[in-house]
Amino acid sequence: MENILEKNEIIAAENNALFSKRGIFVLNLLGSPGSGKTSLLERTIEYLKGELCLAVIEGDLFTSKDADRIARQGIPVVQINTSGGCHLDASMVKGAINQLDLTTLDLLIIENVGNLVCPAEFNIGEDAKATVLSITEGEDKPLKYPLIFKQSSIAVLNKIDLLPYTSFDMTAAQGDIVSINPFITLSPISCQTGEGLGVWYGWLKQQVKIKKDMINCLV
Amino acid sequence: MENILEKNEIIAAENNALFSKRGIFVLNLLGSPGSGKTSLLERTIEYLKGELCLAVIEGDLFTSKDADRIARQGIPVVQINTSGGCHLDASMVKGAINQLDLTTLDLLIIENVGNLVCPAEFNIGEDAKATVLSITEGEDKPLKYPLIFKQSSIAVLNKIDLLPYTSFDMTAAQGDIVSINPFITLSPISCQTGEGLGVWYGWLKQQVKIKKDMINCLV
Repeated sequence: MENILEKNEIIAAENNALFSKRGIFVLNLLGSPGSGKTSLLERTIEYLKGELCLAVIEGDLFTSKDADRIARQGIPVVQINTSGGCHLDASMVKGAINQLDLTTLDLLIIENVGNLVCPAEFNIGEDAKATVLSITEGEDKPLKYPLIFKQSSIAVLNKIDLLPYTSFDMTAAQGDIVSINPFITLSPISCQTGEGLGVWYGWLKQQVKIKKDMINCLV
Repeated sequence: MENILEKNEIIAAENNALFSKRGIFVLNLLGSPGSGKTSLLERTIEYLKGELCLAVIEGDLFTSKDADRIARQGIPVVQINTSGGCHLDASMVKGAINQLDLTTLDLLIIENVGNLVCPAEFNIGEDAKATVLSITEGEDKPLKYPLIFKQSSIAVLNKIDLLPYTSFDMTAAQGDIVSINPFITLSPISCQTGEGLGVWYGWLKQQVKIKKDMINCLV
């Protein structure tokens, strides 16, 4: 197991070096099945595609359902099927990168397999992790699955349009997330109504800018 | 990996033999984080505890939040913490059984780690698997995570009280589940309102009776 993780870290570092050379900000998008990762991607692409050059890598066990949804938006998308595997690893991502034209990209979002446990243990070469939690999952989830929140730079609390019909305690959830990771950005949103998405878009654009500035500084 | 699975199968068979000797029906309760496994357990215990002698094993990464909820109902509960591990395995369950008095039990429900992928690959000695899917996760999930539905005897479609506020297509979801597993029982429910729980209770009681009858037949 340690060997697998070590080997993965080496390939992840290679992936990251390649992204950095091109000045591409790469986000590893995590969350439970049905938390709304693909819906968030659809909203994000719609909003940002006129402004930034972006591409998506879609991780799924077997189907290309999510990649098909993203392809409809007219941006480059590469499907990784893990054949039942519970997470993406760096070598899968390395293979997918070869199918993308990196020369003009600003932003690459990699949607991981729907799973709140295993994907947190495998770096894939990303600059940051974002975890999407649907409020329908309950406010106890951050403390039950702390690693993924500890490793994420932003926690997106999705489906807030359903708050009136659930007993979800937003204050408790946010407090728990911050207790696990004091440096995390919190972003309550609804992909249905669009509420709160401004913070998410703003955060993403800021990360892209920071990465570009860093590269310009190094050149 | 194959060695791990093989070794697990051996211990799972030992667990199952022990349960069968005692005539206990054992259910492996599966589902995404926040699908409502613990809420379903709370409802089930409340309804069945006067009628059947039951116990619970709770699988969690780190906390005892779910076990604490179950303990409030006054039935025996054993906590397994996987220390970050993404599924229960047969040897963890073997260790937990030692902490239970099996002599009078009719029904043991083992709540697995919230995860729609990995727990499906590890038998723990159960007689049947049940998968809980929250309708807020979306109707595309059965085809995206087919193994867990293929291996389950019953699929519980939870949170149907939220149907009016989502675009969940119940007919499509049920059709997909049955296409993966034609022998599965479908049980749409709401743990909030109690709607549909009769089918679930009836199914459980039937399984307990079948197991008892089988044992009596063998004696």
